[in-house]
Amino acid sequence: MKTKLKSGIPTKMKALMLTAFEATPKVLEVDVPTPGKGQVLIKIDSSPINPSDWMFLRGLYSTKKTLPVIPGFEGSGAVVATGNDFMSRRLLGKNVACFAHPEQNGTWAEYMVTNYNFAVPLKKNFDMEQGAMLLVNPLSVIAMIKIAKKAGYTAIANTAAASALGQMMNRMCQDEKIDLVNIVRRDEQVDLLKSQGANYVVNSSSGNFVEEVSALFHKVNVKLAFDAISGQMSSDLLNALPSGGEVMVYGALSEQPITNDPGRFIFEKKRISGFWLSEWITHQNILTLLSSFSKIQKFITDKHHTRIQKRVPLESVGEGIKLYTENMTSGKVLIQP
Amino acid sequence: MKTKLKSGIPTKMKALMLTAFEATPKVLEVDVPTPGKGQVLIKIDSSPINPSDWMFLRGLYSTKKTLPVIPGFEGSGAVVATGNDFMSRRLLGKNVACFAHPEQNGTWAEYMVTNYNFAVPLKKNFDMEQGAMLLVNPLSVIAMIKIAKKAGYTAIANTAAASALGQMMNRMCQDEKIDLVNIVRRDEQVDLLKSQGANYVVNSSSGNFVEEVSALFHKVNVKLAFDAISGQMSSDLLNALPSGGEVMVYGALSEQPITNDPGRFIFEKKRISGFWLSEWITHQNILTLLSSFSKIQKFITDKHHTRIQKRVPLESVGEGIKLYTENMTSGKVLIQP
Repeated sequence: MKTKLKSGIPTKMKALMLTAFEATPKVLEVDVPTPGKGQVLIKIDSSPINPSDWMFLRGLYSTKKTLPVIPGFEGSGAVVATGNDFMSRRLLGKNVACFAHPEQNGTWAEYMVTNYNFAVPLKKNFDMEQGAMLLVNPLSVIAMIKIAKKAGYTAIANTAAASALGQMMNRMCQDEKIDLVNIVRRDEQVDLLKSQGANYVVNSSSGNFVEEVSALFHKVNVKLAFDAISGQMSSDLLNALPSGGEVMVYGALSEQPITNDPGRFIFEKKRISGFWLSEWITHQNILTLLSSFSKIQKFITDKHHTRIQKRVPLESVGEGIKLYTENMTSGKVLIQP
Repeated sequence: MKTKLKSGIPTKMKALMLTAFEATPKVLEVDVPTPGKGQVLIKIDSSPINPSDWMFLRGLYSTKKTLPVIPGFEGSGAVVATGNDFMSRRLLGKNVACFAHPEQNGTWAEYMVTNYNFAVPLKKNFDMEQGAMLLVNPLSVIAMIKIAKKAGYTAIANTAAASALGQMMNRMCQDEKIDLVNIVRRDEQVDLLKSQGANYVVNSSSGNFVEEVSALFHKVNVKLAFDAISGQMSSDLLNALPSGGEVMVYGALSEQPITNDPGRFIFEKKRISGFWLSEWITHQNILTLLSSFSKIQKFITDKHHTRIQKRVPLESVGEGIKLYTENMTSGKVLIQP
């Protein structure tokens, strides 16, 4: 016997299948996959639609899996079968947060197989919906704060700051005693972040945004700005930062290229670099990561639930994507098979 | 008595004066300046027209001195008077290579006052014309090689590689056992650099430049590219580099902005940064710098004279600038008062 099973696993399941980039994935009936050595089979509870999924669906993400494929980079669920090896077996029966394997089928299905080390056990009674969003956003925030601290900064900036990630960054920077300049594009987002304890929030739609944010960067001593937007925002940030400042791009919500005057690099010693969680994570020690996951669960339980605006079944994925991409600030959309 | 003088210094001198950016500087008769404490008066022998001068004349350089001003960032000459202090006095009567003070009059005149620490004594019998080009280019090359070595690289790339700086980089990398990919834009420049011992020269005018240079970067393991051109060249370099690669911009000969796909930063961990000699030098130990100058003079004497295409008097500066900017590869143009 090659796999450890819990009873009641069907042979067929419903899954969302992406057959072409830029198409809406369709519900199909496919075989429930079997976990091999070092793998676990997870009965999916919930899976968010993240910006990376939205990029992936349109063929714009770095990870271009071979089509047809089941999308979905993260989720939560219960481990119902494992490969017959020590590391996988210890997860059997546990509720986990999980990543999809970077080259294989994802979380937008009733079941998913992934590597045991892409599944993180959830604490007892930890909410499965919050668990579905445990990895990408919180770990990105932890990573960015680590990067800032390692470089010796006690102040940073972040754009799209009213996003789920941005709100989490706002809370976590308060805990970590890091000054954070939150950049949003609407007045109600300013109010939202201030109601969550933010000291500095700038609205990029204001007429003199660059001057305003530059004055704040100099006052608070921000030399590192994380940017989820790219395009004009990255250029504005590079202009606004003091000499020696760095823009670290981690998203491209604007889907625009980044254009800069070479003088910013030559004469002002500024830099543009990038952050990608999937790359960052490969350099981390597993024990540090596990301690991060434990810290994240405590943080989420005690302080900051990510807001959910809608739960949709597999069949309504198109509606869910539309809702989420048109209003990311209102909360996450969860897919629940 | 406040200054140490050598006899025979007139009270008036001829100098090129820039009265408006984008205008050709004009010859005027002005007072010979008097060195204060910590300063030296240099009777200028020669001064090159550098790309930084060309930018400065048009108001495009970072250092925007108050007009009217005498241009010229570097040169050579004899110290004929000094402030009455130990550090300045020891230079009296010596031939020096010199930088202009960053906020004051420059080298395109019969005499210039500058700080004692912007004047580097030339070795006995060292050529005054080569001495006029001792600082900007050789020190930039030394700086870039130091930056590369400190980051652990044994292979780098450079653009505008047939320039005076580029040719020096080619020679010095051979001495330092660093693999250098030279990027030029004409076939005769390929031949020139190969005749000077280059192993790798790529012509950016070839139809498939990006593919060609990318293959070479991967083969030779180039992860750091120095770029004097900016614009499309910087983007091409960033695309061509392997993951984790860095473009370090040190010039903007194209005078074009730099545009990049955000994915290069996010998914490929690439970076754009800048190098500026004036900034770099402020972080260097004075003893390290002096040892660099000594090394440079030996290198120039033994191995690599910078080619001079024309010597012009102050009156012919317009002609000199035209000649130089239209054909930088043919050699430097020296202004000789």
